[in-house]
Amino acid sequence: MKLRLLPFALLVSLAASSGHSQTQTNAPAEDWKPASSNQPGKDYPKVNSEGRVKFRIVATNAQNVGVTFRDSSPFTKGEDGAWYGYTRPLDEGFHYYAIKLDGAEVPDPSSLMFFGAQRWGSAVEIPAKDQDFYALRNVPHGQLREVFFYSKSTDSQRRAFVYTPPGYDQNPEQRYPVLYLQHGWGENEYGWGVQGRAREIMDNLIAENKTRPFIIVMIYGMTNETRMGGMRDFDIGPFETVLVKELIPYVDANFRTLSDQPNRAMAGLSMGGMETRTITLRNPDTFSHIGVFSGGSIAVTNITDLAAFKAGNRLVFVSYGSKELGGDRPTRGGDPKAHAEALRQAGINSHFYVSPDTAHEWQTWRRSLREFAPLLFKP
Amino acid sequence: MKLRLLPFALLVSLAASSGHSQTQTNAPAEDWKPASSNQPGKDYPKVNSEGRVKFRIVATNAQNVGVTFRDSSPFTKGEDGAWYGYTRPLDEGFHYYAIKLDGAEVPDPSSLMFFGAQRWGSAVEIPAKDQDFYALRNVPHGQLREVFFYSKSTDSQRRAFVYTPPGYDQNPEQRYPVLYLQHGWGENEYGWGVQGRAREIMDNLIAENKTRPFIIVMIYGMTNETRMGGMRDFDIGPFETVLVKELIPYVDANFRTLSDQPNRAMAGLSMGGMETRTITLRNPDTFSHIGVFSGGSIAVTNITDLAAFKAGNRLVFVSYGSKELGGDRPTRGGDPKAHAEALRQAGINSHFYVSPDTAHEWQTWRRSLREFAPLLFKP
Repeated sequence: MKLRLLPFALLVSLAASSGHSQTQTNAPAEDWKPASSNQPGKDYPKVNSEGRVKFRIVATNAQNVGVTFRDSSPFTKGEDGAWYGYTRPLDEGFHYYAIKLDGAEVPDPSSLMFFGAQRWGSAVEIPAKDQDFYALRNVPHGQLREVFFYSKSTDSQRRAFVYTPPGYDQNPEQRYPVLYLQHGWGENEYGWGVQGRAREIMDNLIAENKTRPFIIVMIYGMTNETRMGGMRDFDIGPFETVLVKELIPYVDANFRTLSDQPNRAMAGLSMGGMETRTITLRNPDTFSHIGVFSGGSIAVTNITDLAAFKAGNRLVFVSYGSKELGGDRPTRGGDPKAHAEALRQAGINSHFYVSPDTAHEWQTWRRSLREFAPLLFKP
Repeated sequence: MKLRLLPFALLVSLAASSGHSQTQTNAPAEDWKPASSNQPGKDYPKVNSEGRVKFRIVATNAQNVGVTFRDSSPFTKGEDGAWYGYTRPLDEGFHYYAIKLDGAEVPDPSSLMFFGAQRWGSAVEIPAKDQDFYALRNVPHGQLREVFFYSKSTDSQRRAFVYTPPGYDQNPEQRYPVLYLQHGWGENEYGWGVQGRAREIMDNLIAENKTRPFIIVMIYGMTNETRMGGMRDFDIGPFETVLVKELIPYVDANFRTLSDQPNRAMAGLSMGGMETRTITLRNPDTFSHIGVFSGGSIAVTNITDLAAFKAGNRLVFVSYGSKELGGDRPTRGGDPKAHAEALRQAGINSHFYVSPDTAHEWQTWRRSLREFAPLLFKP
């Protein structure tokens, strides 16, 4: 089966320009502070209390400097010869961007580098009122392990990241449930561990006794070796083979997992949510818990054998950012809230979550993981 | 004690321009292939059989495009409107660079991003005749684990990378020796695991039964929280405290180490080699094996109590790239080969290695690790 995922590519490309549509009528608040997403020792970009971002670009001989955020101020040369410009107020959370420089689009050399929008490049973190839930706190930490395994179906060494919860190495008799967690289109297996803050979110939830400790496995969600490319003809089959036939057996052989169906979940964002829906519905004996973040929803009519599904499924969780819903932007596959309610009426453990004031971006998905994790693997 | 490390900063800044000094008299060989260090799906930069690198930069309105490699060709606009230019033949191995664009120095958006020269930015990999020893092969793989621990002396959560060898999780009764392995000035704790290929080198050596399996721990070698900054006034004390008083106890408590002195080594490159020399000589009861890569050497006169040192030390390994030696460039602290021989004469297990045809760059240090590892922790 070919999945037509083009609408997701469109959403991802829109993401960098989401946020308030306020225009530049007023002067920005002059309480700029260096962004937490900056490279070591870099003062710029700076963020102010309105959520605006101010850039400083050294390009002495450039004719034209700008940034990919829409509705930004013109960039002008300061007294030090560097170029300065700032954005409109942006949503809380994480936003990819690039610098425009005489016709080039390049990473901002002052930003840390993140993989999204099909490239390693710059992004900026806007402080959020609820940022403590994904902060690196002084609590017991799990480990994020980079592993490689041989995939026979693709004849390649494939990278996965595995989060093991605090105490994993100290309790050699304990076994853990596993969540397979997928990134979105244009992203890769680094996304959840870096900008997604999956490690910090889990460490903090576990420290507060809000979730059962479990393992998380993150892998690249396609099999095109040059990476990315068109979504139009994306065939989920080869990825499904890697995940179900190769990665899961590898993880169960190399980590202390609870390897039965009630202890295995899959979730993903955007394209990864769509992959989750397809793969979990096709493999009900493999997965018991389903999470779809900004990636469509599951209608009762999507389920072939409702009685069998009800017997084996333990959770269907669907989420969106509030700015993805309503208005004139159609939600893929129908009203997700109505679908969630219908599932509940049909006797399924169905949850629907809306992240306040966020769009198709990582702040929505960080919060989705925070809401999803405590619902998993209940005794 | 303050260490004056300025000469290393100089060497590091020179590194990107090292290589043959052949001028651009002949046309380059037209056998260009995409570099292995490119971002997914990127055709450029390309490398040819002479070790030249060819760049393609889209910057339609730029007046001037170039690259930080000295003696590169002028960049000119191609028929597609993009800018093209190429380097002189470069040494085999790994080289940091940046793109120059109308007065800006920016990462090449087509390159993967590496931390060195004090920034996350671009680099290019020139295929080496011996590249198989650091290739990702189909052998049993260890894990590279990102961990965070609380450092009381700096009141901060500090990141370390820990390589656990293949079989670590499968043999819960086995304990392992530990190597603490340091990066150079302007680099950080990612260096050895990414461009240093420490994981691949160890996996391959272990698969060939050339080394005993051991754990490697990598941490940022300074304590300035904004990172980097001047070397002139660098004080090694705070880092020594983090390493010896905090990181080692953390590792011994959280990994299955052999925690006695005979099973603990320290090594490092450039600044990290100098740190290794200072810290191991100050802490002879903590470390038994010493590796100094392109970072000076150890003279008999550096050792305060030779008899005690001989009783506790099991290895002193010093290495350089051949292009760092001889000529009119003075080697820091005297002739390293003569020092190594004098140590040997004094009854110390002293080894000296020279990497052929390489300079103060990662190819020297990859080979140094390959030569050093098999000498460690012999029964």
